[in-house]
Amino acid sequence: MPDCIFCAIVDGTGPAELVYADDTIIGFLDIRPVRPGHTLLIPRAHATGLADLPPETGARLFQAGQRVAAAMRSSPLGADGVNLALNDGRAAFQSVFHTHLHVLPRHSGDKLGLAKGFLTRRAGDLAAIAEMLRTELGTDPVNQG
Amino acid sequence: MPDCIFCAIVDGTGPAELVYADDTIIGFLDIRPVRPGHTLLIPRAHATGLADLPPETGARLFQAGQRVAAAMRSSPLGADGVNLALNDGRAAFQSVFHTHLHVLPRHSGDKLGLAKGFLTRRAGDLAAIAEMLRTELGTDPVNQG
Repeated sequence: MPDCIFCAIVDGTGPAELVYADDTIIGFLDIRPVRPGHTLLIPRAHATGLADLPPETGARLFQAGQRVAAAMRSSPLGADGVNLALNDGRAAFQSVFHTHLHVLPRHSGDKLGLAKGFLTRRAGDLAAIAEMLRTELGTDPVNQG
Repeated sequence: MPDCIFCAIVDGTGPAELVYADDTIIGFLDIRPVRPGHTLLIPRAHATGLADLPPETGARLFQAGQRVAAAMRSSPLGADGVNLALNDGRAAFQSVFHTHLHVLPRHSGDKLGLAKGFLTRRAGDLAAIAEMLRTELGTDPVNQG
């Protein structure tokens, strides 16, 4: 879709620290992470939200979320827990209208109040974190994606 | 699993306002909703979290989320948006260790700060809301589940 910043990442014209890729889904680091490693998973084919996301693609999106969540725990990122979240519609805080699943690594005692987290988002070292997750996932999204 | 309150709902020995049921997933209203209609979807087969949830079941869980989200918009509940969320691990605020997907109806201008919402949870009329969603979904989870 023209002017969609996530479609631009899919077609390689928009910059992103890619973390994950398969034939249906790609994943990259959020540029304003709530926590280091905060990843967004999106379908390659544009879908605005849950209503126009084919259920088969929704299935793949969630399964990619399971894989990335596992990598966040087993990689040096060392997550103790993970939040998956999908905000569908402006009323639900969706801000980019190419549907995306947030995968958020958590650590015991991080005392993340989500509201607070959203106020203090900053990039950190995206490249190093992306490499850590790519290594753990054993995929090569940079060349594949 | 013995002593699992969600397994008790699956086997019919625990009370719940059921909203959704298929052969793999059931859904019921959260007894401490962040917003009226707040639904939890769970696999019938006990899984603690993402790591022991079979990917095929994860796929079905997400697809049930898409269906319930659509019903929240089209039913008289009249949601303008929906949040899907899965908290995996105590560090990610998981409190019941039978994995569950939150489906949270949102309305434009509800100004929900999630942190605030969690402080002000109250049941409301669970039975009436459950009936509204069951009608929209066209399923009969009460007898099936």
